[in-house]
Amino acid sequence: MRLLVAWILAAGCAPAHPAFPSGWHIIDLTHVLAPDVPTFGGKSAISSKPLAKVDPDGLYLNEVTLLEHVGTHVDAPAHFVTGGASIDQVPVERLVLQAAVIDVTTAVASNADYALTADDVRRWEHRNGALTAHHLVLVRTGWGMRWSDAARYRNPDAQGTLHFPGVSADAARVLRDRGVPAIGIDTLSIDPGPSTTFDAHKTFLGGGGYQVENVANLDKLPETGAVIVVSPLPLAGGSGSPARVIAFVH
Amino acid sequence: MRLLVAWILAAGCAPAHPAFPSGWHIIDLTHVLAPDVPTFGGKSAISSKPLAKVDPDGLYLNEVTLLEHVGTHVDAPAHFVTGGASIDQVPVERLVLQAAVIDVTTAVASNADYALTADDVRRWEHRNGALTAHHLVLVRTGWGMRWSDAARYRNPDAQGTLHFPGVSADAARVLRDRGVPAIGIDTLSIDPGPSTTFDAHKTFLGGGGYQVENVANLDKLPETGAVIVVSPLPLAGGSGSPARVIAFVH
Repeated sequence: MRLLVAWILAAGCAPAHPAFPSGWHIIDLTHVLAPDVPTFGGKSAISSKPLAKVDPDGLYLNEVTLLEHVGTHVDAPAHFVTGGASIDQVPVERLVLQAAVIDVTTAVASNADYALTADDVRRWEHRNGALTAHHLVLVRTGWGMRWSDAARYRNPDAQGTLHFPGVSADAARVLRDRGVPAIGIDTLSIDPGPSTTFDAHKTFLGGGGYQVENVANLDKLPETGAVIVVSPLPLAGGSGSPARVIAFVH
Repeated sequence: MRLLVAWILAAGCAPAHPAFPSGWHIIDLTHVLAPDVPTFGGKSAISSKPLAKVDPDGLYLNEVTLLEHVGTHVDAPAHFVTGGASIDQVPVERLVLQAAVIDVTTAVASNADYALTADDVRRWEHRNGALTAHHLVLVRTGWGMRWSDAARYRNPDAQGTLHFPGVSADAARVLRDRGVPAIGIDTLSIDPGPSTTFDAHKTFLGGGGYQVENVANLDKLPETGAVIVVSPLPLAGGSGSPARVIAFVH
């Protein structure tokens, strides 16, 4: 992990200077947290109660109530695994990773329930090299474009079954076996909408990995080369947490 | 800002390679968020209600209620300024900064209410160069060592007045005038404990800056050279937010 950090922060060879060639920029992969953001269950999962206002109280302050899995958020292993790491126990070194963006937007265009396959993973590796313990695999489904319309993002059918893309148990197993610490996706869940058994969750969290759901702006990332800092709150004993997720892109 | 990012992420001159010389590491500047963490008001400011457990529900999930200013957190300008930016409006580019650590532990040892002076700031600049729009000024008071003992961290006297170190209005003005985007401190507030007028808050937030309070592990940072990623949740309209704060240190 230190090698990755050394690579990210190679300041010694390029000191700060106004004349240094630009080209890197920051992309926020986080959706704004508001009461009307789409949720898995369909009910609002965050609310805010004003406790004071600048006029007349001199300062402005709210109390916020939220589900640990609202908005752009991290699932800790404990979310599905008894005895698994809670969100405050995920080592900070595992929160800084290289992005490996796997694009499945074409497959999703003809199948809203598409689940990333093990072959999709292998094709990415054939082009870009093996996935490692330094990678955050980001599954780009194109679903993020629907975020502002909760009904289209949840996409329930007449029976109430949700339809959105995810990750197959097979692919989760391959990623787990590569030692990949984290999977991210631009939908409500790494299991596709109709899943009732959550096999990808169980497989990947069961291996000690963590997940990032409702990731924003995946359309703005290159297939490789971005560095991601995933920043959940260290909630003591938490099953997960809303997170700020920031990408550094060349 | 892009120049700073280019400097942070100078990957082009030092590509990822197992043989790359190590030396950079990550330090978590965030306290774990638990119901018993010290608070300004003295009452618990975060609580968690279990909604489901792996046994028997198949998954583990909590609802969390918190004050926007609990634990390691960011104050947005809106916290004290009508019409100031709310926490979701702080540009992501301002969340990645170079650390400028100003140590006042010696002065604090003989005065718990010590407030960083404008001269302290100028002495740091004399040694290290001018503060800029790329700096996060981190005031190291030594108070972070008291975090695990809320009574010592709040340090109230017999009348209930709190005693802990902070930043003077003069110093806040100098930092604001340098264009410094953010001040962090290892105490409950950038105004010293006995303040009732919050002059440093009004001065610095009034200039459009933000503040990071209850920063952890400041004793582990060098005076210069660390890069900090400050990650508040983008709470819509929020006055602030608990934040993950991560340092990259050589």
